[in-house]
Amino acid sequence: MAKIRNTTRQKTKTIAERRNDPTKRGGGASARAAHDDQQVTALKLKPAPLSPAMADLFKLCEQKLGFVPNVFKAFAFDMSKLEGFVGYRNAVMQGESGLSKVEQEMIATAVSTQNRCYYCVTSHGASVRGLSGDPILGEQIVMNYRAADLDQRQRAMLDFAVKLTVEPWTVEESDREGLRRAGFSDRDIWDIAAIAGFFNMTNRIASAIDMRPNSQYHAMGR
Amino acid sequence: MAKIRNTTRQKTKTIAERRNDPTKRGGGASARAAHDDQQVTALKLKPAPLSPAMADLFKLCEQKLGFVPNVFKAFAFDMSKLEGFVGYRNAVMQGESGLSKVEQEMIATAVSTQNRCYYCVTSHGASVRGLSGDPILGEQIVMNYRAADLDQRQRAMLDFAVKLTVEPWTVEESDREGLRRAGFSDRDIWDIAAIAGFFNMTNRIASAIDMRPNSQYHAMGR
Amino acid sequence: MAKIRNTTRQKTKTIAERRNDPTKRGGGASARAAHDDQQVTALKLKPAPLSPAMADLFKLCEQKLGFVPNVFKAFAFDMSKLEGFVGYRNAVMQGESGLSKVEQEMIATAVSTQNRCYYCVTSHGASVRGLSGDPILGEQIVMNYRAADLDQRQRAMLDFAVKLTVEPWTVEESDREGLRRAGFSDRDIWDIAAIAGFFNMTNRIASAIDMRPNSQYHAMGR
Amino acid sequence: MAKIRNTTRQKTKTIAERRNDPTKRGGGASARAAHDDQQVTALKLKPAPLSPAMADLFKLCEQKLGFVPNVFKAFAFDMSKLEGFVGYRNAVMQGESGLSKVEQEMIATAVSTQNRCYYCVTSHGASVRGLSGDPILGEQIVMNYRAADLDQRQRAMLDFAVKLTVEPWTVEESDREGLRRAGFSDRDIWDIAAIAGFFNMTNRIASAIDMRPNSQYHAMGR
Amino acid sequence: MAKIRNTTRQKTKTIAERRNDPTKRGGGASARAAHDDQQVTALKLKPAPLSPAMADLFKLCEQKLGFVPNVFKAFAFDMSKLEGFVGYRNAVMQGESGLSKVEQEMIATAVSTQNRCYYCVTSHGASVRGLSGDPILGEQIVMNYRAADLDQRQRAMLDFAVKLTVEPWTVEESDREGLRRAGFSDRDIWDIAAIAGFFNMTNRIASAIDMRPNSQYHAMGR
Amino acid sequence: MAKIRNTTRQKTKTIAERRNDPTKRGGGASARAAHDDQQVTALKLKPAPLSPAMADLFKLCEQKLGFVPNVFKAFAFDMSKLEGFVGYRNAVMQGESGLSKVEQEMIATAVSTQNRCYYCVTSHGASVRGLSGDPILGEQIVMNYRAADLDQRQRAMLDFAVKLTVEPWTVEESDREGLRRAGFSDRDIWDIAAIAGFFNMTNRIASAIDMRPNSQYHAMGR
Repeated sequence: MAKIRNTTRQKTKTIAERRNDPTKRGGGASARAAHDDQQVTALKLKPAPLSPAMADLFKLCEQKLGFVPNVFKAFAFDMSKLEGFVGYRNAVMQGESGLSKVEQEMIATAVSTQNRCYYCVTSHGASVRGLSGDPILGEQIVMNYRAADLDQRQRAMLDFAVKLTVEPWTVEESDREGLRRAGFSDRDIWDIAAIAGFFNMTNRIASAIDMRPNSQYHAMGR
Repeated sequence: MAKIRNTTRQKTKTIAERRNDPTKRGGGASARAAHDDQQVTALKLKPAPLSPAMADLFKLCEQKLGFVPNVFKAFAFDMSKLEGFVGYRNAVMQGESGLSKVEQEMIATAVSTQNRCYYCVTSHGASVRGLSGDPILGEQIVMNYRAADLDQRQRAMLDFAVKLTVEPWTVEESDREGLRRAGFSDRDIWDIAAIAGFFNMTNRIASAIDMRPNSQYHAMGR
Repeated sequence: MAKIRNTTRQKTKTIAERRNDPTKRGGGASARAAHDDQQVTALKLKPAPLSPAMADLFKLCEQKLGFVPNVFKAFAFDMSKLEGFVGYRNAVMQGESGLSKVEQEMIATAVSTQNRCYYCVTSHGASVRGLSGDPILGEQIVMNYRAADLDQRQRAMLDFAVKLTVEPWTVEESDREGLRRAGFSDRDIWDIAAIAGFFNMTNRIASAIDMRPNSQYHAMGR
Repeated sequence: MAKIRNTTRQKTKTIAERRNDPTKRGGGASARAAHDDQQVTALKLKPAPLSPAMADLFKLCEQKLGFVPNVFKAFAFDMSKLEGFVGYRNAVMQGESGLSKVEQEMIATAVSTQNRCYYCVTSHGASVRGLSGDPILGEQIVMNYRAADLDQRQRAMLDFAVKLTVEPWTVEESDREGLRRAGFSDRDIWDIAAIAGFFNMTNRIASAIDMRPNSQYHAMGR
Repeated sequence: MAKIRNTTRQKTKTIAERRNDPTKRGGGASARAAHDDQQVTALKLKPAPLSPAMADLFKLCEQKLGFVPNVFKAFAFDMSKLEGFVGYRNAVMQGESGLSKVEQEMIATAVSTQNRCYYCVTSHGASVRGLSGDPILGEQIVMNYRAADLDQRQRAMLDFAVKLTVEPWTVEESDREGLRRAGFSDRDIWDIAAIAGFFNMTNRIASAIDMRPNSQYHAMGR
Repeated sequence: MAKIRNTTRQKTKTIAERRNDPTKRGGGASARAAHDDQQVTALKLKPAPLSPAMADLFKLCEQKLGFVPNVFKAFAFDMSKLEGFVGYRNAVMQGESGLSKVEQEMIATAVSTQNRCYYCVTSHGASVRGLSGDPILGEQIVMNYRAADLDQRQRAMLDFAVKLTVEPWTVEESDREGLRRAGFSDRDIWDIAAIAGFFNMTNRIASAIDMRPNSQYHAMGR
C-alpha cells in the first residue's frame, strides 16, 4: 500500500525563527493563519510515512473537518507515537460515558484555559461551540467557566477538573463525595479525572513545542 | 429637557437568582444571549435618569455600535459615577498616544485575561479583532499573548502590563528601562501603566458585580 | 487667568538615577524625605500649566493638608488626564455612601498593602490613622487586617476587597450574599467593589512609575 | 481462552471509608502496606476480564517485578482504557530515545514530586534508585532535584520539565534553545515534553482517585 | 530567691473571645492598645515563676525599653522554653557580625512583612526606625523594601532574605555568589540566612497564637 | 580539657565548586554519599574548637546514631551559635509534650517537604520511619501527608502546621478552635506552632547554605 506523506514540514523556518526575522513579519490575518497552518510546531522533526491506519484517520479528518488537526501532524514523525496517542485519546474521549460529548469538551476547554494553552483552548473551545450550538457558552468556558450559567452538575464537574489541574495534591475523598452528590457515578468520576488528566498532558506538550492550532478552528461554531 | 431612562433593570431577577431557578434554565444560545443583554449585573440598582451628556453618549453608542455597552448601563444608577467613569476612561484611552488603538486594546485584553474577567475579555477581545482586522490575533491575546507572533516592541509592552498585573510590587527601574530600549518614551510608559491599571480596576468591578457583556461582542470582528 | 506651574520636576535626576549615583547616596532621613518630595516619579514628564480648576484644587490641598499629594503632581503633565482622574476619584470616594470615610480608607489601605504599593499604603494608612483617631488600627490594616479587632461587618468588607484583589475571577454570588448578610446593601457592594477596583488601579500606576508619597504622610495621625 | 480476573476489589471498603471507621484503624506498617496493596483506588469500579494481551502483561509484571503495578489494576475495569493507556505509555517511555532510562525516570519523578503525587513519586522514585544504583540520587529527585549533583545536561532537562509542569504557558523558544545548548536534539526535546506531559496526566488521575502504590516499591533499590 | 510572676494572663478573656463579645467592642485607640498590652496571645497558658536569669532580663527590658516585649511574656509559661529562645535569639542577633544592627533589623522586618506578621513587623519596624534615625526608611521596609533607596549591598541582602522566605527551595550557589559579589563574606551569608530563618520561625509562632505587640512600639522612632 | 576539632572542612572544595568541575563528577552512589558526608555546607567556615558541652554532645551522637548530624557540624564554626541552637532545639523538641515523639517528627517532616528542604526531609523522614516502625508512613509524610491514613487528630495537626508554613498570615482563632476540637490543649497548640516554626527556620538555613544530610539517614528505618 502506498505511503502518504503528511505536509507538516514544507516550510523550512519555524515560527520561532520567523519571530527573529523582521523581513517576514506582518501581513496580518492571512499571514498569521498561514503560518499556524504550515508551521505546526517549533521542532524540526521529519514526518514519517503514515501507516495505513493513520492514513485512514487523516483521510477521515479531511472528510469530516476539512483538515487534519495539527496535533496529529505533530506526532506524525513517529508512527508508534502517533498511534499510541490516538489510541489512548480514543479510549479517554470516545468510549461510552455518563458525560455528554459537550461536557467532555467543557472539561477539555476549562483545563486548557487554566493552563493558557493556545492550541487546546482554540480547538476545544471550537468543539464546545459546535457541540452546544451556543457560541456564548464556548466563550464563557474559554474566559472563565464561573461566568457561565451552568447547572450544579456541570459546575461541580468543572470545579473538580480545575482543582485537579491547579493543585492536584489537595484532592481528597470530600471532593469525590461532592461529585457523587452532584449525581456522578464512580465511573463518571473516572472519566472526569481521565479527561482532565489527558488535557493537562496535551496542554504541556503543546506549550513545550509551540504547537499551532489549524486556523479553521477560530471560525467554527460562531 | 426630557430624561431618558435606560433599560438595565427591566427584569426582576438577576442572573444569580436565575441560577437557583431550575424552571428558567436552558434554552441554549438565545437564552444565554438574552440574559447577558438584559441582566447587566447581579446588583439591584435602579437606573437614574440619564443626564444630557450621558444621553448623548448612549445615542452615539447605539448609532456606532448598535448597542450601549453594558459597562455604561452598570454605572447608570448614579450619573455622577457614570460621568466620572466615562471622563476618566476617555482621558486614559482616547487622548493622543504613542500607542496605536490596537495596542491599547491588546493591553486591555491581556490584562483582562490574566484576571479572567468575562466582561472585559469579551469586549476588548472584540476590539482587538476589529481594529487589527485579524481575528486570530484577537484569539491569541485572549488565550496567551505569548503565542502571538508579536514584534519586540509589542511583546515588551504586554510583558510589562502583565507583570504589573500579577506582581506590581516587583516592577522597578530595570522594567522601565526595558520599555525604553524597546522604543517607548516616558510618555508611552505612562500610557501603558495607565491602561494596565485601568483594566485592573474594571476587571475587578466587573467580577465583583457579575457584569455581563452585550451578546453582540461575541461575533464582532470574526 | 494666570497659569500656575507645579513643581514636580525641579531636579533633573529621578530616584532611579540617584540609585546608581553613589556620590548622592546617604544623608539619611532628611535626604530620603527630600527626594520623595521632589522627585515624584521615575518618568521625565514635563508638568503642564494647571487649568483653573486644578489650580484651585492644588491651592485647596495646600490649605487643608499643607501640601499637594504627589499623585496629583504625577498626573499634572496633562490636564485632561489630571482632571479625568480627579473627577473619577471624587465620584468613587466622595459621593454619598453607606460606607463611612474610615471604612473607605480601610479598603484603600488593605488593597494597597496586598499589592505592596509604597505610595498608597503610606497615604491611605495615614488616612485611616487620621480618620479613626487610632494609630494602632492604621498599623494593623497596613500590616495584616486580620490582626485588627474588627466587627463582622468591617471584616466581611475587607475580606471581600482582598479576595477581589488577589483572585477576582473567583468572586461569585455567594461572596455578594456574604456581604448582604453582614448588613451591606447592593449600593454598598458597588462602593466596596468600586473602591477596591480604584486602588488596584492606582497601586499599579504608582508601582509602574515609582510614585513617591509626600514625606508628610509618614507622621500624620501618629 | 480463559479470562483472568484481577483482584483489585476483593475488599468492600475503600481507604476513604476506612478513614471514617475508627475500629479499623491502626496496625501500623503491615496494615498500611496491606491496604495500599488491596484497595487500589477510592473508586468502586468492578474489574473487567483481562484481554489476552493484558493477561500477558500482568503475567510479565508478576515475573519481572513480583507484582502488577496498581496503575494497571486501576485501569482494568475497562480493557479498552487499559490497553489504550498501556499502548501510549509504551510509546512515550519505551521507544528509542536520546534520553537514558534513568533520565526518563528522573523526569517522571521530578514532575510527580512537583505535583506531590504519592503513587507516582513512590513508583518512579523506586525506578530512579533501581536504574541508577544510587539510592541517594533517588531521594534527591524526590525531595528537591536542585539538591542533586547533576551535570548541566540533566539539570537543564529537569528545569525544563518542572517549568513545563508549574507554568506551561511561559515556555517559549528561549527555553527550547536552552535545551539545545545543553546538547538535546529536537527529537530529545519532544521526549522530555512527552514524558513531562505524561506524568502531569498520571499524577492527576492518581490524585483524583487516591491511587495507592504497591507496597513493594518502598523498599526497592535501597 | 524570690520568684517574680509576670502579668501576661491577668484578664480572663483572650482577644479571640472578645471578638465574639459585642459588649466589649469599641473604645477605639486606647482600648486597642490596652488589649494588645494585656492579652499577649490567644492561648491560655499560665505564666511560670521567672527564673533568676529571666527575671534579670525582664528588669533590664523595663529599664531600657520601659516594657517587657510580649514575645518574652508569650514564652514565659515555661522557663526552659523562654531561656532556650532567648539564648538562641542572642546567638543569632547579638554576636559579632559583619552586618550592622540596622541591617539585621532590616532583614527581620523585610521577612516579617513578607509573612504579614503583625507582631514582628511592628516591633522590628520600630527597630529599623530607631536604629537608623530614619522613620521613612522604616516605613519603606515595612511596605515594600524595593521602594527604599538602598545601596547594592543592602539590596542584595534583602533580595536574598526575601527569596529565602518565599521559595527557599530555589536558593542555590548562584544566589550565594550574588551575595559574595555584593561584598558579603561566607560568615556574613551565614548571618543573613540565620536571621532570615529566625524570623520565619517567630513570624509563624506569632501568627499561630495571635501574639500582640506591645502598644509602645507603634510610636517609637517616629 | 582538650578541645576536639570537628572535621567539617577537611576537603577544600565545596559541593558547589565540584558541580563546576567535570573531572570530579560521577562515581555514582558512593561518591554522592561521600561528599554529603564530607562537604557539609557550601560555606567556607572554619570549625571552632568544640566546647566541653558540645564535645559531649558530639560523642553522644556518635554513640547513639553512629555519626554527628551535619546540622551540628554546620553550626560548629562558633560555639555560642551551636550551643544556642542546641539549647533552643532541645527546648522545642525534648521537653514534656502532649505530642508524641513521632507526631513531632511528622510535623518536622511535613513542614520540611512543603519547603522542599533536602536536609530536613531526609533526616526527619528517617525519624518518622524509625519512631513509627512504619516506613510507608514515613514515605507518605515525605510525599504528601494527605495520602497517609491518619486519624483526625494527626490530620488536624498537620493541616495546621502546613497552613502555618504556606500562608501564616491567614491563621486565626477558627484554626486554633479546629485544633481544640481535635483534642489538642492550648499547651499542645503551642508545641505544634513552635515545632512548625522551628523547621521553617532550619529549612531556610539549610537551603541557604546547601546543608547536606549525613548519608546514613537514607537507609535508616527502611
